[in-house]
Amino acid sequence: MSPPFDLDAAVTAAAQAARSLAFASAAAKNLALATMADGLETARRQLQEANEHDLAAGRDKGLSAAMLDRLALTDARIDLMAEGLRQIVALPDPVGQVVRQGVRPNGLEIGQVRTPIGVVGIIYESRPNVTADAAGLCLKSGNAVVLRGGSEAIHSNRAIAAVLARALEEAGLPPAAITFVDDPDRALVTRLLKMDDRVDVIIPRGGEGLIRFVVENSTIPVIKHDKGICHTYVDRGVDLNMAVEVALNAKVQRPGTCNAMETLLVHVQSAEPFFHAFAPRAKAAGVTIHGCKRSCALLAPVMGASVVPAKEQDWDTEWLDLNLGVRVVDSLEMALDHIAAHGSQHSEAILTNHYDRARRFLREVDAAAVYVNASTRFTDGFEFGLGAEIGISTNKLHARGPMGLEDLTTTKYVILGSGQLRE
Amino acid sequence: MSPPFDLDAAVTAAAQAARSLAFASAAAKNLALATMADGLETARRQLQEANEHDLAAGRDKGLSAAMLDRLALTDARIDLMAEGLRQIVALPDPVGQVVRQGVRPNGLEIGQVRTPIGVVGIIYESRPNVTADAAGLCLKSGNAVVLRGGSEAIHSNRAIAAVLARALEEAGLPPAAITFVDDPDRALVTRLLKMDDRVDVIIPRGGEGLIRFVVENSTIPVIKHDKGICHTYVDRGVDLNMAVEVALNAKVQRPGTCNAMETLLVHVQSAEPFFHAFAPRAKAAGVTIHGCKRSCALLAPVMGASVVPAKEQDWDTEWLDLNLGVRVVDSLEMALDHIAAHGSQHSEAILTNHYDRARRFLREVDAAAVYVNASTRFTDGFEFGLGAEIGISTNKLHARGPMGLEDLTTTKYVILGSGQLRE
Repeated sequence: MSPPFDLDAAVTAAAQAARSLAFASAAAKNLALATMADGLETARRQLQEANEHDLAAGRDKGLSAAMLDRLALTDARIDLMAEGLRQIVALPDPVGQVVRQGVRPNGLEIGQVRTPIGVVGIIYESRPNVTADAAGLCLKSGNAVVLRGGSEAIHSNRAIAAVLARALEEAGLPPAAITFVDDPDRALVTRLLKMDDRVDVIIPRGGEGLIRFVVENSTIPVIKHDKGICHTYVDRGVDLNMAVEVALNAKVQRPGTCNAMETLLVHVQSAEPFFHAFAPRAKAAGVTIHGCKRSCALLAPVMGASVVPAKEQDWDTEWLDLNLGVRVVDSLEMALDHIAAHGSQHSEAILTNHYDRARRFLREVDAAAVYVNASTRFTDGFEFGLGAEIGISTNKLHARGPMGLEDLTTTKYVILGSGQLRE
Repeated sequence: MSPPFDLDAAVTAAAQAARSLAFASAAAKNLALATMADGLETARRQLQEANEHDLAAGRDKGLSAAMLDRLALTDARIDLMAEGLRQIVALPDPVGQVVRQGVRPNGLEIGQVRTPIGVVGIIYESRPNVTADAAGLCLKSGNAVVLRGGSEAIHSNRAIAAVLARALEEAGLPPAAITFVDDPDRALVTRLLKMDDRVDVIIPRGGEGLIRFVVENSTIPVIKHDKGICHTYVDRGVDLNMAVEVALNAKVQRPGTCNAMETLLVHVQSAEPFFHAFAPRAKAAGVTIHGCKRSCALLAPVMGASVVPAKEQDWDTEWLDLNLGVRVVDSLEMALDHIAAHGSQHSEAILTNHYDRARRFLREVDAAAVYVNASTRFTDGFEFGLGAEIGISTNKLHARGPMGLEDLTTTKYVILGSGQLRE
């Protein structure tokens, strides 16, 4: 039997590893990433054996088919993890990038330079691929990572983390830079959240309950990846064909994601012609509509049982499936008020041909991403050109929206002088 | 008698004010700032009467002369508050500044634009000028502010806040954008720290106890302005004259500030000649040295009773006065280890003529500001060219070091499309 997991010692070791990793060269980090990718492929069989333990336990516990599917380490998913790490190799190293630089009147040369944050704690649920994805991004940005996955994936996560830490060692980097919390006891999460002397940021990835728990218990700064209640507003006088295609894409292209549309707002003047084109397409795609009175009246003749009257709490619901709230509004103001009251400040879109209303929507909607005439589904690190993302931050501080490598850094001011004194 | 202060209603009003203030024009905000400055000058007599209440209460409570001095609203300090607001008028409005912009291969135009954070909570102690300084910076950056000052300054703060809110109204901006928590009850702070549905960031400014209380009780993200245990390391082979001047400046130019030097580290090869020049100057300036064994032996002959043996906890002490820890080290490594173990990651300096050691110090020291051959006293928004500062952040996330107007903003992605769909 192995000794009990010592969280305190593990986090201290991660913090020590962070100190030297902070100035590891990009070449060393890239070698480690490539070794990690190779290692995952080589260890495919062992990973899948470990995963089989989790799947068996999950079946015994009665996890849903969807949960079991998210848990499964298929060949394709192992390939994707390895491929993800190789893509991170190709991204530029953010450490040492100069954010600003200048010379002061007294001759001091002052630069602001990106440096690693230090130790990043990731608390996540279910999908074991997060172990490799998060570890890869933290490594490339020079941070040590403390990984705390869900108990349902503990065998898979442990096996993946072991491969990654071994690869670090082979590449001459401190293996404690990828530290896996190998104990499913929930009390360890609470303890980890108080280690603000050694852990610099906590990134929770999971459901609302997990995120709330972390926010309420952490003395470490938290970057949330919270829910997305995203709206699309169909303006009056819009190109109806474009509006139908974009609204459908926002809902059905991948409804389980945080950037999928959850509520569709339609200007009263567009309602009839828009729904005429939208309803059969939505029905064919399997969408169930929770409509306001006016939208029910217009949609029911076409969609039948696929339309139900909306309840008040529906406007605050992140469906993450083919359910959709639909509301007819009398004006842009009413749409803006609805979004301010019910949106989660994630991704919001207006579909319009009107210059002033487009500008007003962009200016007045407070969200991580605000769109004119495009699908909210684009809120994503790859789509925004940031490369791989550690998630989509719903924080306003530090990082907002898709969070790439740069967002895993802090800065330091570097000042070169020749004996300057403050007067 | 006025009704009891309703914190919940006040914070809700501040959040509503924030929504419209977010897109107020720079012209409107500048007019308000100028009106605020004029208002403070016009209300000089009332401000000083209110301040007299606080001073009398402070004398009754037995506050120290230093505390009473910090509390006093002299004519010069009222002038400074007004002048500070006028300087903020002259700073560029950060709202709407484009951080990055580009066109994706699919034709989406994606820009990242600065927007206000929303509602900023400031929890501060003692100096009433913070009321005007913080309110001015928050206003210029489009944020509503909730101000919670110390009970010892409540009359002064209330009077200042009333002038500021009236000026907002005169300038056509919502007065709730500057909301003063007009109730000294400590329980209100605890309640405020849980209002993460309406307050976006908390900035505590005060002693260690206040900051720890805020970090432990807040569910709102916190930007700390914590202590500065700053070091200056005198390398071997350094220009001794420069080293003496810079080290003295870092200690004595204004010892009560967080960027003043608290510990001086001296390479053993420099110790004798450096101390020979440094000791009489330090003694003349009234410095008391807490020295390691080797430094005591070298300094005592010149400084006599002004040198005492250092205790272990001295290395972790922010003196904020003319006390100074001094330690002789055998190598740069030993200095780096000392700084990593005892520094507070604020401002650290090396005084050297050696290219590689300078680079190594810059790379390996993890702090908000790292210097070569200059006084740590330069860590300051004005000195760094950022304009007025809301403080010096010791956070690693969002803002690190002097925190100017840009650091009081978040960003949003603005995406202009022509019907793009995610595939």
